[in-house]
Amino acid sequence: MKEKITVIKVGGKIVEESESLGNLLDRFAAIAGHKVLIHGGGRSATRMAERLGIESRMVDGRRITDSDTLQVVTMVYGGLVNKNIVAQLQARGTNALGLTGADCNIIRAHKRPVNSIDYGFVGDVEYADGNMLATLIGQGITPVVAPLTHDGKGNLLNTNADTMAAETAKALAEHYDVTLIYCFEHPGVMRDPEEATSLIATITRESYRALLADGTVSGGMIPKIDNAFNAIESGVKEVIITRADAIDGTQGTHIIA
Amino acid sequence: MKEKITVIKVGGKIVEESESLGNLLDRFAAIAGHKVLIHGGGRSATRMAERLGIESRMVDGRRITDSDTLQVVTMVYGGLVNKNIVAQLQARGTNALGLTGADCNIIRAHKRPVNSIDYGFVGDVEYADGNMLATLIGQGITPVVAPLTHDGKGNLLNTNADTMAAETAKALAEHYDVTLIYCFEHPGVMRDPEEATSLIATITRESYRALLADGTVSGGMIPKIDNAFNAIESGVKEVIITRADAIDGTQGTHIIA
Repeated sequence: MKEKITVIKVGGKIVEESESLGNLLDRFAAIAGHKVLIHGGGRSATRMAERLGIESRMVDGRRITDSDTLQVVTMVYGGLVNKNIVAQLQARGTNALGLTGADCNIIRAHKRPVNSIDYGFVGDVEYADGNMLATLIGQGITPVVAPLTHDGKGNLLNTNADTMAAETAKALAEHYDVTLIYCFEHPGVMRDPEEATSLIATITRESYRALLADGTVSGGMIPKIDNAFNAIESGVKEVIITRADAIDGTQGTHIIA
Repeated sequence: MKEKITVIKVGGKIVEESESLGNLLDRFAAIAGHKVLIHGGGRSATRMAERLGIESRMVDGRRITDSDTLQVVTMVYGGLVNKNIVAQLQARGTNALGLTGADCNIIRAHKRPVNSIDYGFVGDVEYADGNMLATLIGQGITPVVAPLTHDGKGNLLNTNADTMAAETAKALAEHYDVTLIYCFEHPGVMRDPEEATSLIATITRESYRALLADGTVSGGMIPKIDNAFNAIESGVKEVIITRADAIDGTQGTHIIA
């Protein structure tokens, strides 16, 4: 029987305000057994770009990443956000190790091909190395993964953190029973974001089609749920979309294969 | 018999100009067997601080690190410099892993006590974890270490890279025959920096006293040589101060216990 592992993706305001981050890290440190944290940091990157006089351009929620912007996200995701989380987890007794996809070659990608839009230094994931991750985890290490990959030719690539979480969870599924939890500000996928009782407890492929058709699911939720289905249909045992104060996985929306 | 390992410290301009960095990484990747790279990045940090309107204050070559400056060095050392080196080593077939002292708790420090000067968030190293480093290295991983440590209470600390190199080499000496090479712009310790033939081939404790007394060694070379003696007198097999194009260890100044 495989051991269990919990893969938590956290982004948005939660990771960028010191009180909510502290609370999240308290809860993450308390999770028993193996675990991985994958974080975002977009708001901090936008703020830092602004301070440096670099314009942030977004298309469909994705950042156009020219070479100046790549420097900013490398500094902010790989340095500022990642290393502060690592130091704060060490203070909570979790033996954290900060990683980008380049570190130990854990997540390789290629630069997104230019079609109608040139996203610049943005990565589409090719593979995640579950063996190397399992080797590190087997040493009692808790990986903390920043949303950066590399192309194997010396270039770092800005990469969507939801996608990295799905790919990491899939790569670990050969070694562990994986629970993947996407945390954000809401209790889960909602019929009405203003109405807590409107939480959708489970989504299947069939119900997802209906939710898309009637507009209940739209915008940034679509790639998140697509990533969730990608994971659950590729060997990940459980995928949950929930609020950051519910990372024990008892609440939220379950994505069902 | 122990296996060999080469610990290279590189700083200054070498690590901050893309051509010299590329050449250095070519040579580093070509070193056979186990190896560790420890890097600086002070000039990049100063430039980034300037762009952000943060004043850089130095005392005896050490950066006064207030909380804004700590953010800058965390971004620049832990993110920009470190992750670019990692990606470029991956492109050269070296399975690099970027680390700060907080990652896997490899180098713990405490905030320097305030005496006549308050250095702010600057770390004095307490210990380096040779067992954890050896575990990683045993997996075929090449650590690339940024000059940041942590205090175990959630704070990152700006830490002298020469000192981190000495402490890392000492911690590895229990597991490996360690050669520690400090690289910089000069061929080694010189009687006359303008005169290539004036290289001092070996320095002992006795000759060091004379070199200090007659002013041949002064300024920033003093802590570098002090770190070198600290290493060679604590089990490191060979310590060399040399130019970045001579990291095979055949040239430069040998520090003799």
